Amino acid sequence: MATSLIILAAGKGTRMQSDLPKVLHHVAGAPLLIHAMRSAAALEPEKTVVVTGHGADLVEAAARGWSDAVEVVLQAEQLGTGHAVLQAKDALSGFDGDAIVLYGDTPFIRPETLEAMIDARAAHDIVVLGFEAADPGRYGRLVVEGDALQKIVEFKDADAQERAIPLCNSGVICAKADVLFDLLDAVGNDNAAGEYYLTDIVGIARGKGLSATVVRCDEAETMGINSRAELATAEATFQARARAEAMANGVTLHAPETVYFSHDTFIGADTVIEPNVVFAPGVTIENGAQIRAFSHLEGCHVSRGGVVGPYARLRPGTELAEDVKIGNFVEVKNAVLDTGAKVNHLSYIGDAQVGARSNIGAGTITCNYDGVFKHRTTIGRDVFVGSNTMLVAPVTLGDESMTATGTIVTRDVPEGDMAVARARQENKAGFARRMFEKLKAKRARATKET
Amino acid sequence: MATSLIILAAGKGTRMQSDLPKVLHHVAGAPLLIHAMRSAAALEPEKTVVVTGHGADLVEAAARGWSDAVEVVLQAEQLGTGHAVLQAKDALSGFDGDAIVLYGDTPFIRPETLEAMIDARAAHDIVVLGFEAADPGRYGRLVVEGDALQKIVEFKDADAQERAIPLCNSGVICAKADVLFDLLDAVGNDNAAGEYYLTDIVGIARGKGLSATVVRCDEAETMGINSRAELATAEATFQARARAEAMANGVTLHAPETVYFSHDTFIGADTVIEPNVVFAPGVTIENGAQIRAFSHLEGCHVSRGGVVGPYARLRPGTELAEDVKIGNFVEVKNAVLDTGAKVNHLSYIGDAQVGARSNIGAGTITCNYDGVFKHRTTIGRDVFVGSNTMLVAPVTLGDESMTATGTIVTRDVPEGDMAVARARQENKAGFARRMFEKLKAKRARATKET
Amino acid sequence: MATSLIILAAGKGTRMQSDLPKVLHHVAGAPLLIHAMRSAAALEPEKTVVVTGHGADLVEAAARGWSDAVEVVLQAEQLGTGHAVLQAKDALSGFDGDAIVLYGDTPFIRPETLEAMIDARAAHDIVVLGFEAADPGRYGRLVVEGDALQKIVEFKDADAQERAIPLCNSGVICAKADVLFDLLDAVGNDNAAGEYYLTDIVGIARGKGLSATVVRCDEAETMGINSRAELATAEATFQARARAEAMANGVTLHAPETVYFSHDTFIGADTVIEPNVVFAPGVTIENGAQIRAFSHLEGCHVSRGGVVGPYARLRPGTELAEDVKIGNFVEVKNAVLDTGAKVNHLSYIGDAQVGARSNIGAGTITCNYDGVFKHRTTIGRDVFVGSNTMLVAPVTLGDESMTATGTIVTRDVPEGDMAVARARQENKAGFARRMFEKLKAKRARATKET
Repeated sequence: MATSLIILAAGKGTRMQSDLPKVLHHVAGAPLLIHAMRSAAALEPEKTVVVTGHGADLVEAAARGWSDAVEVVLQAEQLGTGHAVLQAKDALSGFDGDAIVLYGDTPFIRPETLEAMIDARAAHDIVVLGFEAADPGRYGRLVVEGDALQKIVEFKDADAQERAIPLCNSGVICAKADVLFDLLDAVGNDNAAGEYYLTDIVGIARGKGLSATVVRCDEAETMGINSRAELATAEATFQARARAEAMANGVTLHAPETVYFSHDTFIGADTVIEPNVVFAPGVTIENGAQIRAFSHLEGCHVSRGGVVGPYARLRPGTELAEDVKIGNFVEVKNAVLDTGAKVNHLSYIGDAQVGARSNIGAGTITCNYDGVFKHRTTIGRDVFVGSNTMLVAPVTLGDESMTATGTIVTRDVPEGDMAVARARQENKAGFARRMFEKLKAKRARATKET
Repeated sequence: MATSLIILAAGKGTRMQSDLPKVLHHVAGAPLLIHAMRSAAALEPEKTVVVTGHGADLVEAAARGWSDAVEVVLQAEQLGTGHAVLQAKDALSGFDGDAIVLYGDTPFIRPETLEAMIDARAAHDIVVLGFEAADPGRYGRLVVEGDALQKIVEFKDADAQERAIPLCNSGVICAKADVLFDLLDAVGNDNAAGEYYLTDIVGIARGKGLSATVVRCDEAETMGINSRAELATAEATFQARARAEAMANGVTLHAPETVYFSHDTFIGADTVIEPNVVFAPGVTIENGAQIRAFSHLEGCHVSRGGVVGPYARLRPGTELAEDVKIGNFVEVKNAVLDTGAKVNHLSYIGDAQVGARSNIGAGTITCNYDGVFKHRTTIGRDVFVGSNTMLVAPVTLGDESMTATGTIVTRDVPEGDMAVARARQENKAGFARRMFEKLKAKRARATKET
Repeated sequence: MATSLIILAAGKGTRMQSDLPKVLHHVAGAPLLIHAMRSAAALEPEKTVVVTGHGADLVEAAARGWSDAVEVVLQAEQLGTGHAVLQAKDALSGFDGDAIVLYGDTPFIRPETLEAMIDARAAHDIVVLGFEAADPGRYGRLVVEGDALQKIVEFKDADAQERAIPLCNSGVICAKADVLFDLLDAVGNDNAAGEYYLTDIVGIARGKGLSATVVRCDEAETMGINSRAELATAEATFQARARAEAMANGVTLHAPETVYFSHDTFIGADTVIEPNVVFAPGVTIENGAQIRAFSHLEGCHVSRGGVVGPYARLRPGTELAEDVKIGNFVEVKNAVLDTGAKVNHLSYIGDAQVGARSNIGAGTITCNYDGVFKHRTTIGRDVFVGSNTMLVAPVTLGDESMTATGTIVTRDVPEGDMAVARARQENKAGFARRMFEKLKAKRARATKET
């Protein structure tokens, strides 16, 4: 049977103390909402409906950025989870499959867990995702008999026996879409908050003779984010898992606790990663590369034998072929470096192409920006770029060409030629000594005056 | 009643293995002594007397640096805490209020705790600060009946029943100043160490019919620092608290455990702080700024919308107006950057003024030092500073002016003008190819010879 | 009696997911094998035999790199630990002392532990190193009566009573060399794996009336490395110990958990180390230096009063005399800097000598590489190198000489002279304003077209 998703993403997240809607706060370089949507992508949903509220425009943009196929509906007033889910009714009219209700602030539910819910739906009308809590605290409790879910009791309504139940409600629910909406139509708001609760559908369903069951997951999967501290915990959880996976896959992390991955980082085996490395989104590292300390990589590709850092910053659009070396205090952006090219020190290579085996001297800068537009620099193979060369783009250095130290290159340099632009060095005899004496006198006067 | 402070700061701290007096070791960018004085500042003390001993000159300088009003007295010989407090007698002669004895190596006592002691003093002659220790170990124990403190027993003098008491002595004591000194005059040094112990005053007071009581605080507040390991633990305690507070206030810390605050750091809500950021003293960040990975800030102010780093270093005197961007491998010192100014790469901006929307090209350096004096650079609004421009201060670039790549600017550039100083580029035909061939031959010879 | 070592280093380490042999993976900047060899060096072994297998050539090279005196033998087939030890028989023929069997993947056994084994050998024929395991799991158990070791039982062969024994087998064994090899000749391979087990010699020895005993060590000492996760744990164990030792020796670590030491790092007392510092191998720091945040040091020496960083990279061959200052975004390599020299910003100083009190301006680069060879730069005392000076090596700046900002120095500068090479600055009137207008028009057109 086909599946659709209803993702609740209307909350403000007051405890975040933020102008940004809660589901747009990031873990591992991606908004919480996207983590939730990605987990559910394994179900190949027919429709995905995101229910927005606070910061609706921003949330809608993020959701559509993930997939064009997403439908977005607005919950104009925040009248409870049941009310929120009902906003998806029109969007799913005519849809004749299962709907799963997910939460935009709950990023870690595993695809396998959702698949288990879908499987359980074949035998039950309603499937609720539950977890055994280490400290059940004020969670709603799931009252079960055998594999039948009898009801969901809110903590405040639970008696002592019910409060002793460790099995808690995650809020994630699966039912046939039309059944879900029919049940929701019967939910009232006769409670202290005056809200419509999604969880009430279980009791109503049971009263109508429908069956309900529970699928269990790890407590960690159901972690919802309500404060910056919880966000930091979620980040730490993600990072711990990513580091362990990287090591299991044969990556050496000298100090795993200092390496930060993004949701989509890929690192090949036998890559060595030194302490204090940050992988922002979009990084792929092939086997056997070396990422040295204090490096920052984003949207880039490092091939076999590549050595990056220490103190290297690779920005989006950086492609390093095999055995390329990027050294300290070097920034590379939107640039392709061919096999064996080297940029060892204090350089900025942006909007550029560097040919095989070319060596870029210390202090080289691609002057790619004219105040409005960015222009490209093209460097051939086996080129020797002297220290402190300024490459005023657009400009091309031919194969096996050279630039003298300190050259400002404004015109193309043909193959095999050397560009030079330099004033002649003059040594002014005794000038330094006289200057030092003057400065000493000045300093003496300054000291005397104060 | 007025309050005065007596702060004991004479200890050497042998276990620190240091030439620096113990109370001058830093936590969160400030000496331990200053932390102790700041906690007590909430009491608005009439007098503050610091008792120095080891490294008296250095400790006195630090104390006076905190406040001119501090009085400093020397304990020439280290004859115990009672003897140390007595050194403050003359400085407090004529003072008719309460005195609190504090310790320069105990940085974390909360102002609320000291206020509770002052409140308790209204009903009792002596107030001792105690804490329930998780592991009481060799601490002195407080023997209480009801709210009356009967005596303080040193661990080595305690019997089994007394050793079972979890309530321990912090050493912090409050009494009317004249009472305190009278009691101290009665303290002897008939003990193994031959020292005069402040704690003995409780027994003497009780013998005279005076009343004593205990105010309780968290054990963490009474943490004293005696070794580098304890110093590191104190630092970690401070950082954990500062990180939690920042997050509660709406700051996003991607990896809180890698962000280091100083005692006076202020960060506004919705600021995002990436991993590996160090805030040295004197930093204020307005709401909604972004501090990227591997940045180091000290004595600076970042306004709304500012983006700093990665790998940016802001040194004292840096003022960034709204939407200023400071990029990688950039150092800024004693400089004011107006709204929307940008310094994106590999630059040093020191002793400078940069106008609104001006763009500073990669590799730009303000040459502010002539070997003796520092000079200022002034850049107007909407200026385009080309890459690798050297600004030989004092020098001014007018509004909407420009410098060509690689210009050494020694004279002012009027508004709307462009400064250029450049040797003409020449391409020497075939020169590079011949050079490479010569180098290859040289390399071949070198290889052959070895 | 003389001692020899047999170090087993043939394993592949399948769980490492690596092409590198297991014993060559690094902890604290040195291969596991070298850690094992160094621990044992305190015994002043007469012979050291390393048994190689997987990646034999690489392992042999590493072992010989540690000491020329090492003998390397190949275990062509991996037929068990007993078989591996037997490969050392020929290499130790004629050796009439004790042999200790160690493991190349077990880096943390303390010299004192090995000495205790040698001492115990005087009274027993065989000495086995054991440890009380917190979780004995599937380790082999040591069955003892008094100080006599009765047998070693593999976990799978142990009965319930034996499995309850917490004393486990580390695998490290000491016996007279000829006794060891005689016993090994009697070991069979009649077991599930078809391997020859070293541990079988204990049972055989007891059957022959020889005596065996156990020396106990901490479990942490016997930690063997079989996966990247265990490698990271070993690294963390090493770092925790190194940080605690540094603090005990009087080094201030603001954030010990962010400072990474190598196996041979030496730091003097009263040195302050800020957060996020990496010490690669070969670093010596004298007392009272300051290593600021985000610095990376390798193969260098920093003298008293030196200040390094933030963001400084000292590479091998860097020698800093007293009071030298290396600032942000500065790389130094194979260079000697004399007392009080300063390199404050954005520079590369490689293959150079810098005299006392000389000041190197921001953006200075030693152009040391001509594409094949490296050349030296020599700077005298009291030299003022202007910002963005390019020093095209080989070149010498005399004492008290100077270079103007932006000078490309290709010829030596005599003592007291100033080198200058500069095109004259020209201010093109109104040029910038016209350029900005053109750019604005271009931008407007671009916007219109899209």
